[in-house]
Amino acid sequence: MKEYAPSAANFVPLSPLSFLSRTATIFPDRTAVVYGERSYTWAEVQTRSQQLAGALNAAGIGLGDVVSVISANTPEMIEAHYGVPLAGGVLNAINVRLEPETLAYILDHAETKVLISDSAFSQSVKKALELTENKDILVIDICDPAAEGDQIGSQNYESFLSNAVLAEFVGPENEWQTLALNYTSGTSGRPKGVLYHHRGAYLMAMGTIPGWNIGQHPNYLYCVPLFHCNGWNHVWTMTILAGTIHCIRDLSPGNVWSEIERHQITHFGAAPIILGNLVNASSKEVYPLERSIEVMTAGAPPPAAILEACASLGMNVIQVYGLTETYGHTVACQPQEDWLSKKPEELATLKARQGVAFPITEQVRVVNVNTRKDVPADGETEGEILVRGNTVMKGYYKDEQATLEAFADGAFRSGDVAVRHPNGYVEVRDRLKDVIISGGENISSVEVESILYTHESVAAAAVVAMPNEKWGEVPCAFIELKQGARTPDIDGLRLWCRERMAGFKTPKRFEFLTLPKTATGKIQKFELRKLARDLD
Amino acid sequence: MKEYAPSAANFVPLSPLSFLSRTATIFPDRTAVVYGERSYTWAEVQTRSQQLAGALNAAGIGLGDVVSVISANTPEMIEAHYGVPLAGGVLNAINVRLEPETLAYILDHAETKVLISDSAFSQSVKKALELTENKDILVIDICDPAAEGDQIGSQNYESFLSNAVLAEFVGPENEWQTLALNYTSGTSGRPKGVLYHHRGAYLMAMGTIPGWNIGQHPNYLYCVPLFHCNGWNHVWTMTILAGTIHCIRDLSPGNVWSEIERHQITHFGAAPIILGNLVNASSKEVYPLERSIEVMTAGAPPPAAILEACASLGMNVIQVYGLTETYGHTVACQPQEDWLSKKPEELATLKARQGVAFPITEQVRVVNVNTRKDVPADGETEGEILVRGNTVMKGYYKDEQATLEAFADGAFRSGDVAVRHPNGYVEVRDRLKDVIISGGENISSVEVESILYTHESVAAAAVVAMPNEKWGEVPCAFIELKQGARTPDIDGLRLWCRERMAGFKTPKRFEFLTLPKTATGKIQKFELRKLARDLD
Repeated sequence: MKEYAPSAANFVPLSPLSFLSRTATIFPDRTAVVYGERSYTWAEVQTRSQQLAGALNAAGIGLGDVVSVISANTPEMIEAHYGVPLAGGVLNAINVRLEPETLAYILDHAETKVLISDSAFSQSVKKALELTENKDILVIDICDPAAEGDQIGSQNYESFLSNAVLAEFVGPENEWQTLALNYTSGTSGRPKGVLYHHRGAYLMAMGTIPGWNIGQHPNYLYCVPLFHCNGWNHVWTMTILAGTIHCIRDLSPGNVWSEIERHQITHFGAAPIILGNLVNASSKEVYPLERSIEVMTAGAPPPAAILEACASLGMNVIQVYGLTETYGHTVACQPQEDWLSKKPEELATLKARQGVAFPITEQVRVVNVNTRKDVPADGETEGEILVRGNTVMKGYYKDEQATLEAFADGAFRSGDVAVRHPNGYVEVRDRLKDVIISGGENISSVEVESILYTHESVAAAAVVAMPNEKWGEVPCAFIELKQGARTPDIDGLRLWCRERMAGFKTPKRFEFLTLPKTATGKIQKFELRKLARDLD
Repeated sequence: MKEYAPSAANFVPLSPLSFLSRTATIFPDRTAVVYGERSYTWAEVQTRSQQLAGALNAAGIGLGDVVSVISANTPEMIEAHYGVPLAGGVLNAINVRLEPETLAYILDHAETKVLISDSAFSQSVKKALELTENKDILVIDICDPAAEGDQIGSQNYESFLSNAVLAEFVGPENEWQTLALNYTSGTSGRPKGVLYHHRGAYLMAMGTIPGWNIGQHPNYLYCVPLFHCNGWNHVWTMTILAGTIHCIRDLSPGNVWSEIERHQITHFGAAPIILGNLVNASSKEVYPLERSIEVMTAGAPPPAAILEACASLGMNVIQVYGLTETYGHTVACQPQEDWLSKKPEELATLKARQGVAFPITEQVRVVNVNTRKDVPADGETEGEILVRGNTVMKGYYKDEQATLEAFADGAFRSGDVAVRHPNGYVEVRDRLKDVIISGGENISSVEVESILYTHESVAAAAVVAMPNEKWGEVPCAFIELKQGARTPDIDGLRLWCRERMAGFKTPKRFEFLTLPKTATGKIQKFELRKLARDLD
């Protein structure tokens, strides 16, 4: 007999838009988004997203047109995650801390048609618009009393919405259709535009539920910027679960702790540096929780010392690993039942590993950088992490060469160096380009840093290569001290290191400063490498 | 720029096979399947499934070939759910209670190449094999000391496996590839063969996690026969969650209660009739639980009285609704937070409704049977349920006409009559063909039954049409009494009904008997209709 082709009855393109229409139907009156004194129900989020889509369509946005958003985690940003794809457009959420030159580069490269801009960032956006060659951008202002700044667009977001005809709520015709365009942080060279499709976002959002073991109706605090992998796709996950999303601008530890307490937050995601701030906050800022709170961390390998401190404050941290190119988390440090009996220090060490395939990830390999064959699972042999699955990007926008190179193994080349432990758990040792090669020996900057983090005075540490005539490179440590901690004696610190690591791994130089960080809390090692070059 | 096509790196066909390879990698030593004194870890389930696939390939099974299984819920049945698709084959799990003629019809219609047969059913299978025109079936016996019966095949399952070369663990090339063939119960005419694809099974298994709000590592008791919608796809869901699946043959209430207690069962699924047996079991069989247990029920609308009794015994029941054609549950009675404050009786009434779209279901409509337009959400106007989504079957095997008819609305026609309540929840009133039309008025048999269930002596009730000269049809009630209950006085029972329902709905005849049921606990109304005809 002949095969049945997919039909309207039995084939619906996978799209996160389905989550909103379902949740708004079943839980119309449940609170969806809270921001300061404002809050919206799921029915309101749906209606406002339809208004936004209608307004964008009226402004000429159609299939594949790029709508850029430069905003903090506001209700408008949440609405853009539904309204832009509903209009058929591509959502391009841009890092708010980028300098005007890079903003302008992105607006040009993305061929942005509409820019929704948070007044808090009007200064740099204004400069970027002057620099851009793309002069036909319709600019819409998010005017927020909580954020000072100028109105730079032709109208504000609320009036843009209020004049709109509601767009019909229909999903994409093709699940491979582009949903989002996210630029990499561009720590080396120009940022690259990573293309996400509807299928991948649907699956990432769905897979996060078993991956994080998360139940119905979470109270979620949005600490992760939504411009970073669309906030780890959590906006879509929270919709399936009919949770409540709490938006904040102020990520200072005092404010985060107070939000956790005030809104009975059950879940949040944050970079390790934010966790470090939370555990190192002054005792009058920290709210000792009488319950446990679920925390997802990613962006950099979290030092075991910080994980241990988190646990003591009631934060149950799961570490995940991924990149912009993998829609965020694609590997997770899946807890094992026998970990319950481990001592805190041992547990923190286990939890500091990146782990195993996320539920939606098909395969995670660690391969020798030359032979491209799997390294042995001995916890020692290093190789590059490869990821294969439905949450790997479509490719880099307008960069076929880079796309071909990234997919050369039939999987995505992460550029991260890792070992695989005998239990299969992967542990990232370094970015390929962050490895320090000293006298022919590879030194993992992450390994040296994780030891420095156990020092009583260290709040944060970054180790980079410093040029050296004799050894080629030597490790140089940049250290951010805990509040109130005195600068340690250098010789004493060197000795302390020497007792805990091989001589060639011991930093040859120590510098104390506030570490330069990206908007997502990643330490900017390229800045430190520049500093290290000048130190020599 | 040109669009990027899907590649090996970023497109993996969705298949439940991915769940097993991931869980066997991350939790190799965790107990996967328990059956009596036997148990297997997830690594063993993977290996044995690869052995089964290797053996099937060696026996000539290739892409699209049908492997039928007639078995109770045994470890072999679980393995078949992975081994058969791994071999490229189509899994055809057949209802063990079918009479030999229908078994033979299915073996012929499915063009079965290999039949794996549980010795418990050797008598009827032997007869079926004599009746079938398909004489080239390789028969493999599951020989289980707990199940008496003859060996009728050429070899037993264990030797079949032990001689095999392990198949490589690779998923399908196309997610639309047929995974399973499930025959409808055939209450009218010949059973129809429903085709499932890998994509639908993956999504159903994944969507069941938020839909049932189920966490990591459940202890799941498999009461639902695996030949019914592949056991509601729970075998695949439990794999994602690295749960433990407990298989049993004996579904008597005493044994189910004892298994729940012995294995600290956290979740099970069962038809309402099984729940009725559990709550009506003798006090020495019922284990009063000190914890609550999550129960999914489907197969027939559960009477509110049974739901209330379940709640009092610690069973938190969620009702789901679906058909073989929708991979099982496609609608669920999603609990609302304000239900927590409802009185038990009111809550049971709410929970007796079928509910709203399951997370994976795109759309559930209730349409007027003539105009095909949505009925108002007034809780009164009846219409037919339509379902659209990725867990709707590909079609009926070798029956294009029936497939076209089923999909005529661009959605699947369920054949079930329902109303939609103002909050959007759907309530099934009847099978289209079970509606009783008396004097031009429609009578929902389900409505009359749910009232009968509240009578103190009634264990189960079924109401069907009885021919009547004056009215065309009148309702006839078949009642199964609780253990030890005395047969009620007919006039008194009629009066009791009359006080609770309109005169035309009151059964004109009452009969007391043990109700005929299908293997899945559905009451066989077609048998009762035959009886009712003869009563007149």
